[in-house]
Amino acid sequence: MSAEFKGLGCVASDKWSDLETVSYQVKPFGPHDIDIKIEACGICSSDLHTLKAEWGGRKYNYPLVVGHEIVGRVISVGPQVSSLKVGDRVGVGAQSASCLQCVDCTNDNEQYCTKSVGTYNSVYPDGSISRGGYASHARVHEHFVFPIPDALPSHVAGPLMCAGITVYSPLKRNGAAKGKKIGVVGLGGLGAHCVLFAKHIFGAEVTVFSRTNAKKEDAMKLGADHYIATSEEGAFDKHFRELDLIVGTANSTKGFDLNKYLSTLKINGRYVSVGLPADGSFDVSTKTFLRNACYMGSSLLGSRKEILEMLEACAQSTTIDFDHWVEKVPINKENAKVALERMHANDVRFRFCFVDYDKEFN
Amino acid sequence: MSAEFKGLGCVASDKWSDLETVSYQVKPFGPHDIDIKIEACGICSSDLHTLKAEWGGRKYNYPLVVGHEIVGRVISVGPQVSSLKVGDRVGVGAQSASCLQCVDCTNDNEQYCTKSVGTYNSVYPDGSISRGGYASHARVHEHFVFPIPDALPSHVAGPLMCAGITVYSPLKRNGAAKGKKIGVVGLGGLGAHCVLFAKHIFGAEVTVFSRTNAKKEDAMKLGADHYIATSEEGAFDKHFRELDLIVGTANSTKGFDLNKYLSTLKINGRYVSVGLPADGSFDVSTKTFLRNACYMGSSLLGSRKEILEMLEACAQSTTIDFDHWVEKVPINKENAKVALERMHANDVRFRFCFVDYDKEFN
Repeated sequence: MSAEFKGLGCVASDKWSDLETVSYQVKPFGPHDIDIKIEACGICSSDLHTLKAEWGGRKYNYPLVVGHEIVGRVISVGPQVSSLKVGDRVGVGAQSASCLQCVDCTNDNEQYCTKSVGTYNSVYPDGSISRGGYASHARVHEHFVFPIPDALPSHVAGPLMCAGITVYSPLKRNGAAKGKKIGVVGLGGLGAHCVLFAKHIFGAEVTVFSRTNAKKEDAMKLGADHYIATSEEGAFDKHFRELDLIVGTANSTKGFDLNKYLSTLKINGRYVSVGLPADGSFDVSTKTFLRNACYMGSSLLGSRKEILEMLEACAQSTTIDFDHWVEKVPINKENAKVALERMHANDVRFRFCFVDYDKEFN
Repeated sequence: MSAEFKGLGCVASDKWSDLETVSYQVKPFGPHDIDIKIEACGICSSDLHTLKAEWGGRKYNYPLVVGHEIVGRVISVGPQVSSLKVGDRVGVGAQSASCLQCVDCTNDNEQYCTKSVGTYNSVYPDGSISRGGYASHARVHEHFVFPIPDALPSHVAGPLMCAGITVYSPLKRNGAAKGKKIGVVGLGGLGAHCVLFAKHIFGAEVTVFSRTNAKKEDAMKLGADHYIATSEEGAFDKHFRELDLIVGTANSTKGFDLNKYLSTLKINGRYVSVGLPADGSFDVSTKTFLRNACYMGSSLLGSRKEILEMLEACAQSTTIDFDHWVEKVPINKENAKVALERMHANDVRFRFCFVDYDKEFN
């Protein structure tokens, strides 16, 4: 069974915010596949990087239909689907397939499978191009489709599927817990989710690093215990060797002094970078990490197990007001242009989520 | 009580292998200090870097008397010394003092104390210069003086005090154990100790990375299970995502392709660099670590607790033939010149240790 879906597509990188209505064929319906009628999709920084074609070393498959923070209803399931049924409300994140057989796939690390297929602008083994959630429907293998708990509205659950899990996994894997001190660099969509989780789900003490004090009030509302305006003189000195873990969500490396951040880590502390800036890199040597024997690393999305766990924890939280931090955007070309350009200008607190799909796709 | 010690000193960096007999004043004898009559001292790569004055950003205090793999007999103890007595055989490593009061000192991380004083070419709070083990005696605070178990000859125990602990600590802190797969990059003094410990003390499966097959036979004798000649075509491909931990002991970054090493790490694996090359650095970004969510970091020496533990483990090992891997060098100017120049030429398997101190210093 093939199918044609409709979406808002990008036809060239210089028209990155001028999306057009496009129709496209999707991959054949496999026995484990699920068709989803989309009702919400968050706007992720990765969408912008892709629309602007600014990540090097990639092929861009036009028309690009981006969006990987998808929530919708199951409208059709393959004959071997066992985990979900028609009518279920489900989510899909940034990954839509993997081999499901390698040592990583079978050990809760499917996001690192070398045969991973991204939810958009990726190529399936049969040559089909994946297209994302700025669209009427999605077709995804059930392993990468997750039931959404009733307590989470669709526009809240959407951003959890990428922004949420991207920070949940490194927090979990690096021992976030009560009694731990965790730094969060940057307060965009990832940073905001990271503060919410570190504080309200893991119970850690949270310090936010941001350039100026402009986001201080929001940071404290999100649950931060401390706030560091990094452009202030001596801002880092007062926090020498204070933190167990830093989650870096910054989307640019301009003017970023890695050494200063590392100086705030305790002995053997870790800096995990989850932002994916298009620009820049760091010049490091043994000495960079030697003073406090710290580690620098990275983390990609999360496993199926972690996504299910995160959704459950979010549903059970009585203290997180997710709704307050997501701005709903009725999906259409005009609104998409405004929202994408506001994202580009860093004018979002802290996530846009497309809604009202019925009006655009009928 | 002041004192004058005699040593083999370096008077200028261009005479780095032409040591001269020098006499020098040492710091006043404190209540916790111990005077040691030296009987053995290993030659560490750090000695060469210091003699050649090739680490930037440091002051070099001439005459330099290097050597921080010291073993000798206690000949005098301060009135408040409680851990050792005259006649004890003891070791001193690369650290000779710290504040002993900060959060790091009181939590088995004294090697990271910001007031740490190195065993040579460092400055004590009173302005005294520290000088090391190519000398008649050493004067060191008891916290940094360790009893040497009878089972370990002095020329074997010497190299453990720096080369040994430098690899023992990161192995211990990064979970080296039976069932773990550990890579060791470079087979010099640090690398050899790392293979011995990883295999014989921690029980891990060990893979050695070296440029050519020249050291393969030695690596296997030391206890390696696998050997990778990194200059061979496709050498890394066969070992994709195989290792839990890599300890990097390479002393140069020339031609070193970090990405290839990182590709051999399992998901969330760690690369710990303990070599301190004078040259070069790495250009890294989030993407460097993203594929397998690995971490890169560093480690400095070890804590008192770890040194005591390592010495005990080495003394109890029935399978390590340390003696085979240390070349004894009767200390004098001529032999020092030969040994230092052979070190410079990487012609040592795998540690020189000065002995026969009585003949030189009387």
